[in-house]
Amino acid sequence: MTESLFTTNNLWILMSAALVFIMHLGFATLEAGFVQKKNTINILFKNCMIVCIGLLTYYAMGFNLMYPGGETAGGFIGFAGFGLTMPEGAAGAMEYADGNYTYWTDFIFQAMFAATCATIVSGAVAERMKLNVFLVFATLFVAISYPITGMWKWGGGWLDELGFYDFAGSTLVHSVGGWGALAAVILLGPRLGKYTDDGKIKPIPGHNIPLAAIGVFLLWFGWFGFNGGSVLSADAVGVSLVFVTTCLAAAAGAVGAFVASYIMFKSHDLSMVLNGILAGLVGITAGADLMSPGEAIIIGFIAGVIIPFSVVFFDKRKLDDPVGATSVHLVCGIWGTLAVGLFGANAGIPQLISQLIGIAAIGAFTFAFSFGSLYLLKVAVGLRVTKEQEIKGLDVSEHEMSAYQDIEQSNYALAVE
Amino acid sequence: MTESLFTTNNLWILMSAALVFIMHLGFATLEAGFVQKKNTINILFKNCMIVCIGLLTYYAMGFNLMYPGGETAGGFIGFAGFGLTMPEGAAGAMEYADGNYTYWTDFIFQAMFAATCATIVSGAVAERMKLNVFLVFATLFVAISYPITGMWKWGGGWLDELGFYDFAGSTLVHSVGGWGALAAVILLGPRLGKYTDDGKIKPIPGHNIPLAAIGVFLLWFGWFGFNGGSVLSADAVGVSLVFVTTCLAAAAGAVGAFVASYIMFKSHDLSMVLNGILAGLVGITAGADLMSPGEAIIIGFIAGVIIPFSVVFFDKRKLDDPVGATSVHLVCGIWGTLAVGLFGANAGIPQLISQLIGIAAIGAFTFAFSFGSLYLLKVAVGLRVTKEQEIKGLDVSEHEMSAYQDIEQSNYALAVE
Amino acid sequence: MTESLFTTNNLWILMSAALVFIMHLGFATLEAGFVQKKNTINILFKNCMIVCIGLLTYYAMGFNLMYPGGETAGGFIGFAGFGLTMPEGAAGAMEYADGNYTYWTDFIFQAMFAATCATIVSGAVAERMKLNVFLVFATLFVAISYPITGMWKWGGGWLDELGFYDFAGSTLVHSVGGWGALAAVILLGPRLGKYTDDGKIKPIPGHNIPLAAIGVFLLWFGWFGFNGGSVLSADAVGVSLVFVTTCLAAAAGAVGAFVASYIMFKSHDLSMVLNGILAGLVGITAGADLMSPGEAIIIGFIAGVIIPFSVVFFDKRKLDDPVGATSVHLVCGIWGTLAVGLFGANAGIPQLISQLIGIAAIGAFTFAFSFGSLYLLKVAVGLRVTKEQEIKGLDVSEHEMSAYQDIEQSNYALAVE
Repeated sequence: MTESLFTTNNLWILMSAALVFIMHLGFATLEAGFVQKKNTINILFKNCMIVCIGLLTYYAMGFNLMYPGGETAGGFIGFAGFGLTMPEGAAGAMEYADGNYTYWTDFIFQAMFAATCATIVSGAVAERMKLNVFLVFATLFVAISYPITGMWKWGGGWLDELGFYDFAGSTLVHSVGGWGALAAVILLGPRLGKYTDDGKIKPIPGHNIPLAAIGVFLLWFGWFGFNGGSVLSADAVGVSLVFVTTCLAAAAGAVGAFVASYIMFKSHDLSMVLNGILAGLVGITAGADLMSPGEAIIIGFIAGVIIPFSVVFFDKRKLDDPVGATSVHLVCGIWGTLAVGLFGANAGIPQLISQLIGIAAIGAFTFAFSFGSLYLLKVAVGLRVTKEQEIKGLDVSEHEMSAYQDIEQSNYALAVE
Repeated sequence: MTESLFTTNNLWILMSAALVFIMHLGFATLEAGFVQKKNTINILFKNCMIVCIGLLTYYAMGFNLMYPGGETAGGFIGFAGFGLTMPEGAAGAMEYADGNYTYWTDFIFQAMFAATCATIVSGAVAERMKLNVFLVFATLFVAISYPITGMWKWGGGWLDELGFYDFAGSTLVHSVGGWGALAAVILLGPRLGKYTDDGKIKPIPGHNIPLAAIGVFLLWFGWFGFNGGSVLSADAVGVSLVFVTTCLAAAAGAVGAFVASYIMFKSHDLSMVLNGILAGLVGITAGADLMSPGEAIIIGFIAGVIIPFSVVFFDKRKLDDPVGATSVHLVCGIWGTLAVGLFGANAGIPQLISQLIGIAAIGAFTFAFSFGSLYLLKVAVGLRVTKEQEIKGLDVSEHEMSAYQDIEQSNYALAVE
Repeated sequence: MTESLFTTNNLWILMSAALVFIMHLGFATLEAGFVQKKNTINILFKNCMIVCIGLLTYYAMGFNLMYPGGETAGGFIGFAGFGLTMPEGAAGAMEYADGNYTYWTDFIFQAMFAATCATIVSGAVAERMKLNVFLVFATLFVAISYPITGMWKWGGGWLDELGFYDFAGSTLVHSVGGWGALAAVILLGPRLGKYTDDGKIKPIPGHNIPLAAIGVFLLWFGWFGFNGGSVLSADAVGVSLVFVTTCLAAAAGAVGAFVASYIMFKSHDLSMVLNGILAGLVGITAGADLMSPGEAIIIGFIAGVIIPFSVVFFDKRKLDDPVGATSVHLVCGIWGTLAVGLFGANAGIPQLISQLIGIAAIGAFTFAFSFGSLYLLKVAVGLRVTKEQEIKGLDVSEHEMSAYQDIEQSNYALAVE
């Protein structure tokens, strides 16, 4: 390894960290666009705070829980201590991570990933969950739950030993976020007015679809770093193949969702296409480095087709998820993880079995952790704002402000004078 | 070529592909901002689908039509077959493209370019064209028309032999999109209410100018990859000069449009300044690697000055283009291509003649292809929505949804209870 | 230095320039979101023009004023002539800047910085300043004032000799912008309706908080280049440490502002959290390369805590700053510069004294320059729009257009027919 190649590899992982960072803006605008106007400040507040809490807790303990190095309890849990503890020689940088990047680079890239799973939850619980309670849950989720299951694979734990494969986190990030979302949605119940007394579904359309569209494009943009950076070097063939499979899967996801939703609903549903793009991206994430372009298209297309079915499935069960996070991240995260056993370089029954074990184990742990901690919070302080607060909107009831001002304050003030 | 330099070169082209991707978000927000509120979903839907269709068709046939390699019919057309057909040795990567980047990198960078020309059309036909018909045309345009004329120059075809110069696509991308837009605008006719019976022009202002401004900044940001990546390596002097000329031309374009529109209309017209920036960017694109900073400023300034004149020119002829795509991409694309013969390293009569031939040939082919295919579609199924649909807006009539929700659904639902 | 390492270093500074460019979109959306609806076009117009004017004036004279090379008058002022004057051998690139980047790269990276300080002013003077007068001031500020004080440190002038430390510009960029903003706010006076006759403060809420939130995320994103690029090479350890300290300070700034404003106002104030993130970023900028992660958290947290106190402080003095630019950029710029003497590798009394001298000298010069030139403009032509114009809003009175259209023009036109 020359200094020059080391510098390039490191630079790419840093650029990837910046790209994954911009995914947080993508999530913020996507979720803000899909909620009602009266809850816009609330969702933006959550998304701002989650990135920040995620980075700080990952510094405080997450990183050392996810990458404990040395001894772990049977590959299930380990902890290298609070704060950052740079291994000897890592400051010299080329002694760390096969000389591909520095200890600081490793931390910041992983830290940017960590917060994404909590952000996924924030969309699903939007418009009805108490802000402070959500922030407590998100902190626990990102500080404890995500790093533990993350270690099982990326920290060299028992699933890694088993042969479970998850390139950039269809399971470790997306379905983890999705399981947390599902637990929260079950415990919270649906938004007022979403389901009528006689069981009908009343769609609650998002208040600003251009914001949601901006979110999807920014998420795709960030995914260049999410998947491309997961090569863990700037290896030319590796990163470029991942760019191709990622983009083709996203494109095929849009087409899949378009076709399926057009057949189902006879309309050009932009929400479905937007979620179809995300579905394709989540779907390819587990095996983006293993697939041919053609296989990526198939995986993405199927992920896109899944979306309208999954949205209807959850809606029928009164699992009210304002942004479709469970469909995109949980269902397509599972699909993408399974696809590694069905397509591409690793396809085969043994891989498929490993994938199923990984999906089940991480799903069980995450769902149990989320359901348990949310249940305790529900009993202790309640998860949900009051009916009055929900009707007024969380912006006014939790933040005493509105996202948009139509009345011109100074005109008003002057008129009063 | 060392492995290290190869890795850096490849990385830059990949980063450029990501930057060109974000231009699609730029186009989406620019066009959404400049249309009426009632057609917002429709334009976002188009822009989402075009990126995806563009990537998939470029995979299916566009790339092999644009870069057929080997034998072509006199440099006019060639085809290396459907799907991606990696040349022997290219997987080893350094045997491909002079060791600057891999086959996958080449594909994804070029694929990101391909969809931009169809996106240019979508702005011009906004607010009145049938969605499905547009998608059919866009597919044909990006799968067939763009790659064929692209091959003439970048695929080593007859214009390349002739000495025609187009660094990053003032003609091959922007004026191609502009010719398609012009053909469509002619066949579609203006929006209802744009021109009164006695021939007066009634401006139809865009519904959300902050969205349009976001679009212009994102397009500029993406242009770092569009022009910078067209160096086809990370060559330090080459890329940095292109960054300088690109930015100075954009800045001068804003000033040119500002001054010209201030003199013409006596107001500070933000739309003109925004389009002036784009004009400067389109104008410098053909020769961004050949110009000194001072020459870049002159080219950009003139491009900016052109904008208000061009907008008025088209408007007087009742060629109704809601976002000014023909002025920005067609007129300034031609200007930028000519400028290569007037300024910079290649200036001179022989170059100017080559430029004129290239502009005319590509313009004639693209306009004929677009006009012909749109005319057939018009005869077969009609290009335009009904008058009722246009008045109601395409969001409701084609998508059954609205871009913005002011009424709070759950409040409403609860009030009804 | 190998060609390969040189190419990578150069590429990173170019990427950083692109990232700093996107900060201008961040400022544009942040400021647009925080002003009233009726002044949206005006603030976007300013922000578009400032980037362009900044680039062109930096080309025309700023760069050679900031980096005069050779002889200067006692390290206080020097000028290498109008336009760009490439030093001999610099075209060969590796003879320039220790072989880390080319002359063009140096120019474009520095040019992107230059415009940011004028943009900071634009937010503070929003909603009441005459557009043309602002553009004249901004041109003087960015062409003359910023490069002169910039030279004192980054151009190797007297503050550099003295040992003053400012890694990426807490003082040279942010507090310079802040001093300009303060001078303008004093001379302009508050917006109509902001303070009642009996001295009460009437908050004028921003019209579109999602836009403001987008701005903050984009600024953070751009800061990867602002601070990361200030390493002036792609050095792996250097850039990665700066990424870590920058992000942790931003995160801690959000938490600091959250906690302090929650205690002070008992509400979850999103504006405070957004400005807290920016405060953390500004605070770490002077010493991002000197701090440990833990120290970065402390610096960022304190910067965040400062925000609500500072906002209240200025408001009580009727210094009306619609976007909080003085609190974020001036106060936290000073804090960050002082922090270099209090924390990290350079901490100590001698450093603290140098920091104080630098803060005072640059502050005095910039404030005097700004106050003086604005005072002359005030006497000559007036700074402020008329009361009628301010009440109507600058969009209508200066631009004859509105940022948003709720009425559908074509419907209206058709109804009239």
